[in-house]
Amino acid sequence: MELSDVRKEFLEGKVKSRELELVIWEKVFEKNPDKWSEANSHAASIRLEELENKTNRKFEGIRKNYVDNTTMRGDVPTTGIEQKVGGAVVPLGIVGPVKINGKHAKGDFYLPLATNEAALVAGLNRGFKAINDSGGIKTIVVKDHMTRAPLIELPDPEKARGIANDIEKKGELFQKMKKAAEFESRVSKLLDIQPFQIGRRLHLRFYFQTGDSMGMNSATKYSSNAIKVLKEKYPEVKMKSLTGNLCTDKKASHINVLLGRGKSIETYIVIPRETIKNIFKVEPECVVELNHLKNYQGSSLAGTLSGFNANVANTIAAMFIATGQDCAQITESSSCFVHAEMDGDNLIFGVTLPCLEIATVGGGTGFGTARECLEIMECHGPGDPPGSNARKLAEIIGAAVTAQDLNLIATEAHAHELAESHIKLARGK
Amino acid sequence: MELSDVRKEFLEGKVKSRELELVIWEKVFEKNPDKWSEANSHAASIRLEELENKTNRKFEGIRKNYVDNTTMRGDVPTTGIEQKVGGAVVPLGIVGPVKINGKHAKGDFYLPLATNEAALVAGLNRGFKAINDSGGIKTIVVKDHMTRAPLIELPDPEKARGIANDIEKKGELFQKMKKAAEFESRVSKLLDIQPFQIGRRLHLRFYFQTGDSMGMNSATKYSSNAIKVLKEKYPEVKMKSLTGNLCTDKKASHINVLLGRGKSIETYIVIPRETIKNIFKVEPECVVELNHLKNYQGSSLAGTLSGFNANVANTIAAMFIATGQDCAQITESSSCFVHAEMDGDNLIFGVTLPCLEIATVGGGTGFGTARECLEIMECHGPGDPPGSNARKLAEIIGAAVTAQDLNLIATEAHAHELAESHIKLARGK
Amino acid sequence: MELSDVRKEFLEGKVKSRELELVIWEKVFEKNPDKWSEANSHAASIRLEELENKTNRKFEGIRKNYVDNTTMRGDVPTTGIEQKVGGAVVPLGIVGPVKINGKHAKGDFYLPLATNEAALVAGLNRGFKAINDSGGIKTIVVKDHMTRAPLIELPDPEKARGIANDIEKKGELFQKMKKAAEFESRVSKLLDIQPFQIGRRLHLRFYFQTGDSMGMNSATKYSSNAIKVLKEKYPEVKMKSLTGNLCTDKKASHINVLLGRGKSIETYIVIPRETIKNIFKVEPECVVELNHLKNYQGSSLAGTLSGFNANVANTIAAMFIATGQDCAQITESSSCFVHAEMDGDNLIFGVTLPCLEIATVGGGTGFGTARECLEIMECHGPGDPPGSNARKLAEIIGAAVTAQDLNLIATEAHAHELAESHIKLARGK
Amino acid sequence: MELSDVRKEFLEGKVKSRELELVIWEKVFEKNPDKWSEANSHAASIRLEELENKTNRKFEGIRKNYVDNTTMRGDVPTTGIEQKVGGAVVPLGIVGPVKINGKHAKGDFYLPLATNEAALVAGLNRGFKAINDSGGIKTIVVKDHMTRAPLIELPDPEKARGIANDIEKKGELFQKMKKAAEFESRVSKLLDIQPFQIGRRLHLRFYFQTGDSMGMNSATKYSSNAIKVLKEKYPEVKMKSLTGNLCTDKKASHINVLLGRGKSIETYIVIPRETIKNIFKVEPECVVELNHLKNYQGSSLAGTLSGFNANVANTIAAMFIATGQDCAQITESSSCFVHAEMDGDNLIFGVTLPCLEIATVGGGTGFGTARECLEIMECHGPGDPPGSNARKLAEIIGAAVTAQDLNLIATEAHAHELAESHIKLARGK
Repeated sequence: MELSDVRKEFLEGKVKSRELELVIWEKVFEKNPDKWSEANSHAASIRLEELENKTNRKFEGIRKNYVDNTTMRGDVPTTGIEQKVGGAVVPLGIVGPVKINGKHAKGDFYLPLATNEAALVAGLNRGFKAINDSGGIKTIVVKDHMTRAPLIELPDPEKARGIANDIEKKGELFQKMKKAAEFESRVSKLLDIQPFQIGRRLHLRFYFQTGDSMGMNSATKYSSNAIKVLKEKYPEVKMKSLTGNLCTDKKASHINVLLGRGKSIETYIVIPRETIKNIFKVEPECVVELNHLKNYQGSSLAGTLSGFNANVANTIAAMFIATGQDCAQITESSSCFVHAEMDGDNLIFGVTLPCLEIATVGGGTGFGTARECLEIMECHGPGDPPGSNARKLAEIIGAAVTAQDLNLIATEAHAHELAESHIKLARGK
Repeated sequence: MELSDVRKEFLEGKVKSRELELVIWEKVFEKNPDKWSEANSHAASIRLEELENKTNRKFEGIRKNYVDNTTMRGDVPTTGIEQKVGGAVVPLGIVGPVKINGKHAKGDFYLPLATNEAALVAGLNRGFKAINDSGGIKTIVVKDHMTRAPLIELPDPEKARGIANDIEKKGELFQKMKKAAEFESRVSKLLDIQPFQIGRRLHLRFYFQTGDSMGMNSATKYSSNAIKVLKEKYPEVKMKSLTGNLCTDKKASHINVLLGRGKSIETYIVIPRETIKNIFKVEPECVVELNHLKNYQGSSLAGTLSGFNANVANTIAAMFIATGQDCAQITESSSCFVHAEMDGDNLIFGVTLPCLEIATVGGGTGFGTARECLEIMECHGPGDPPGSNARKLAEIIGAAVTAQDLNLIATEAHAHELAESHIKLARGK
Repeated sequence: MELSDVRKEFLEGKVKSRELELVIWEKVFEKNPDKWSEANSHAASIRLEELENKTNRKFEGIRKNYVDNTTMRGDVPTTGIEQKVGGAVVPLGIVGPVKINGKHAKGDFYLPLATNEAALVAGLNRGFKAINDSGGIKTIVVKDHMTRAPLIELPDPEKARGIANDIEKKGELFQKMKKAAEFESRVSKLLDIQPFQIGRRLHLRFYFQTGDSMGMNSATKYSSNAIKVLKEKYPEVKMKSLTGNLCTDKKASHINVLLGRGKSIETYIVIPRETIKNIFKVEPECVVELNHLKNYQGSSLAGTLSGFNANVANTIAAMFIATGQDCAQITESSSCFVHAEMDGDNLIFGVTLPCLEIATVGGGTGFGTARECLEIMECHGPGDPPGSNARKLAEIIGAAVTAQDLNLIATEAHAHELAESHIKLARGK
Repeated sequence: MELSDVRKEFLEGKVKSRELELVIWEKVFEKNPDKWSEANSHAASIRLEELENKTNRKFEGIRKNYVDNTTMRGDVPTTGIEQKVGGAVVPLGIVGPVKINGKHAKGDFYLPLATNEAALVAGLNRGFKAINDSGGIKTIVVKDHMTRAPLIELPDPEKARGIANDIEKKGELFQKMKKAAEFESRVSKLLDIQPFQIGRRLHLRFYFQTGDSMGMNSATKYSSNAIKVLKEKYPEVKMKSLTGNLCTDKKASHINVLLGRGKSIETYIVIPRETIKNIFKVEPECVVELNHLKNYQGSSLAGTLSGFNANVANTIAAMFIATGQDCAQITESSSCFVHAEMDGDNLIFGVTLPCLEIATVGGGTGFGTARECLEIMECHGPGDPPGSNARKLAEIIGAAVTAQDLNLIATEAHAHELAESHIKLARGK
């Protein structure tokens, strides 16, 4: 069968949109594994053509920017996402270098930012200048785990408590669940299972170490396997949902802020007064004050549990898009507390990012511009040891958000000529 | 001067990265407005070349997917973002059609999704089938305003209260501030100013109608203009920050959930029992139950103020990237309450999206694949009347997130064979 | 019939416990209005006797401390609470005087504190000393309203929106609802109705001015009357609940913090450095720092929406019990933001209490020790003008919580010998 | 010296108010330990007399209801609270019996309620009837610990992390800290120390088992002792505050909801449909629906992290006052999730109380009416084994709040004639 025939059948509605890749591969390329990628490319083109016909428009950009995210594992083909028509492009800027003194990120780094936000790159440059003039930024990954929290149901709260206690004592049951959870995995390790009871139901929050992958998919699968073991011992356990929203995935939540998810990062810079004054034309005490008034008092009044910062989501979003992360996780990954305090004549400035969920392996990270953007920072693919590339990326993002909030707060403080009055105030005159 | 000369000077460090576009335009193209776009393209290429040299790698994808987001207003050139090197590509799928019975979105729509999330498109297709089989989804924009909340400081709380009272009484002061706020605008209207007092400081939350643009930039500028008028009457007013985080922009917050920001959307579908059973192999009562246990009780226990849903951020993110939105706003735009209840034998399913911040004009919406993606849905550029295109897009996104959460909850309910037991339960047997 | 006969019948189970007061009044005192109080006293005694018999114990304290909270309005007798057996006693201390420069509270005040918390009175004394040595504390009631938010249901979200819009435009419908709400009232005024939509339901938050009473009961009744008018115009309105928890009564919530409930109070003291040093042996900068680290950063990390203070609930509880307030409202009335900042060599210290719900009329305020405690502060009963006594009490409580948090933070700062190191730090040495 | 002389000197200002008890004891009673109590009584009377003079009023109630809360441990006298003048009385009602099937509370209980809230006792009676007609309520204490979270500071986040890791590994350091924490205690056991990092600071949340006392004071002292051990190993540790608000004490916070404080309670009742219909004139499905709409959806929209209930604070407050608890803790102790679901023709109704902080030993629990109220429920003083009395009280309070919310929700559901329409709805007609 020729490609044109499939195209014709598709346009006539005889081939369904969601089957197009497979039909082309089977009918035109006779399931040749080397042609899977090409089959996808054709399918996208034909599908887009139909869309153009239906809408009576041309979508040259979408077509031109097609990106190949297919995979062929053994003889199992995957499309990456379903019903592809091409690629969506976001403008990409480069910023840096910034000097990072991390455990995994050491040296001078350029950072790719995919964004439509004017001034973002420029702002980061100013923040980076403050960092570099201060000898670099310190970054630390303080926690690293991916969580999944299936929801199970018991006949009554007493039985639920019994099971929670059994899991919490970390005895035989826990070991069996751990074994089941790790059975299919090369990299993932089960670190803990934390039960949260609510009536006769338990949210079991599984904590996994997942190497350089973000880990959601494996955590889902492995926690599900562990639940099977739990059901063997307690047949009355009824699985209600793979997740009951205590993971928490793709929603802002305090459990992630308090107990972490993905990487938990700390950063700090020790910035001399003169550096702040030179770059931002403001006394550092103004930065300390505005951080309190805006990032803590203002945010508290606004009613937030995670947004104790000025605008770190800008950088998080730009780097997530650039490097092929799961962009729905911008929601919670942008949780951030900003710190600013004087130590003698130095401003100590830094951030706590409690739940930055990222990967350098899997998802969108392995192909196209995402792969290249990770290469710019030398943290593409699996790290050696496992997990070190993802942690490196985490430290780099930590450095970037710190620079961004420093720039914004200092710039806002300057904008309103606080400088003079506040020096007086801070010095008690 | 030749382009090669500028390139040489840049590589030798004689031209700064952030000046490259302007230098090429001035030196090579003698400020020819028609050449501004080309100057940018060259700058990106040269800048990328230097990055390739420094990293000893090739970034063909980034170069190939360069997107032109420059503008020339009169003779004022802008680069879109600073220090461009090219474009970042996210795989784009198409899903639909879905039948929407909105005020602005009426008819059958195809939706573009830029994502790396496998199963997202497929999931939406299932949700859309449920919608279409039920005669379509109803969508309503119930509120529409952009907010900016500058932080001002007074000598003491009493003075702050006096000013708050003066603004709240909507008299002469308010009218003058309104006039100042609207002075430079063609489209924007000031709807309200709401003061929030905290000690001797006021967060003044300005509410603007901003047509089809997202409106943050204009809201910032116009509220700043209004503050100047306020200072004329009350010279003791001291501007502390263009925003004190009560807007709230790019952070999850309850003020946005409660009082709205961007578009506030309501959607609902009336789905016959048989439709749910056919598509999801589950009784609709199971959907109602899991919505309670997961999206409300689980989310409450997790500590969220905005995440009363299963995973709407996936669709929000995919459509934001596809259509050139400000992706940092995924953080709060994904705030969502899901509704599921039985009405006789029908499942009523819908969502409340209190603060969806979107545009069809400005930012990244006007060029490249973003423009094309908006064209697919016939909501690119300014609407007639103003605001109608942005509202149309809001309704479409509302339809999509409804379909997605319906699919996920119903699928999870099915996955665990709740069906049988729960029919009994729901029917009281 | 003799009292002994009723007693006998009661002990034999022929008279129900909840009917005891009425039976005695009718049978023994032949409904003599002057004897209603005595009938209650006898009933409590007999009821307690039975409890003593059943438990084989003696409850002399409960008997001895019986308090008469009955009323007789015309010929309608009320018991105050049901099934009284006597009184519960909480130790009462006195603290003061404290100099208050409020609008309603002016002069030197002694405050009654009913508490079991050792050190509370002593701590307040230290705080009051700081206030008095600084010339007094400024207190302001910035908002004053009681809210009730009935939950109504419409057939679909569109209809719900229509009604919300109709109410919000403050036209004829609003005026009719206002008239109905105020019909039975001498004091209460309806200030506003704010609709909050969630799917096809509306939470209608009614705002009332309620004079010197706390106002919950009247707000419930009057909002219910207004809903009847709403149903006349929109017969499809279905009342779901007198409250849907958006009031919010007796739960900590952000809506109360943001939009107020009861009295919203601001207070501040301007305290010279030497005063702080003399009383607390600490530099004032340490107070500023600890307020940030504990009351904002610590509280934020703990996940609170209302608890940006050290321990104001202690004073709130002690004064609520002493003065006969509704003690369940300690929950939200203790919402508080503490402010501490340097102004030259002065510490400006104050609080924002967004939702302090109190009364000097009604509930437990009119009799017994509660009445006397209000008399100590000269704010018992209805004020002239109406509301002024309740506002006076609010200002006094505001002064007390300010003193308490100042004392605690300063004491904690001192306890850890921060003084020296931080002076250096704050002065940039 | 005669009492009249001391009185005279006091009224002349020669004896300070806060020294009055001691002066009388020393001068009049020559430090006779048996006279300490009497000295306090005289002091209160004289102090009150002075207050009467100053205010030109009489406070007979306060005087008459004086309660003796002094103690004499060996020869160390304490006043209970400072500057006593007498007692504050709250009307006390009795409700019950209610049948409780707990682990610690077994049998039929009468409950004392100190309240000014009309209808509270009556409401509980209706709720208790539903419980009793259903064979009783099941109550379980699922967790039991008191927490204190001192705030310590390190030179930088890396050092802070190192210490957090050292504590978390539960090795030698933890054992030494545990030993120090338990050194002075007979009953308290240190269960865990959980570090929460925020920049260069650690909030160390100590978890103690504290028997029948509420445990705050001992937890403060013992955690302070443990920090000293920590400082021996890490001299750079700087104590910033005995608490940094992560305990969290006397503020509503999510950390208490998620991780518990005091007793965590689960309760449930299995109530036949007919019982609900008989008592509340409503179908049980209406209770399920209103619980979702009000206690979850409404509360979520209101922005709460702890208030997923109708009005449990009423009962919490009434029982806290009656039994001499620390009433400032009503704030967080009233955190509550209400559960309502159908199981066949039964309504399963219950609550989760995550952080109920109570005692039967210490504070106000040991004397006066508080002691008597605990005696009514047979849970006064230390339990055997230790902790069992406090747990018994916790279960009783759990039963009461369950009854109260059941009554309120069912009554509200009935009030609006939902019954008919919703039976149809729930049964799919």
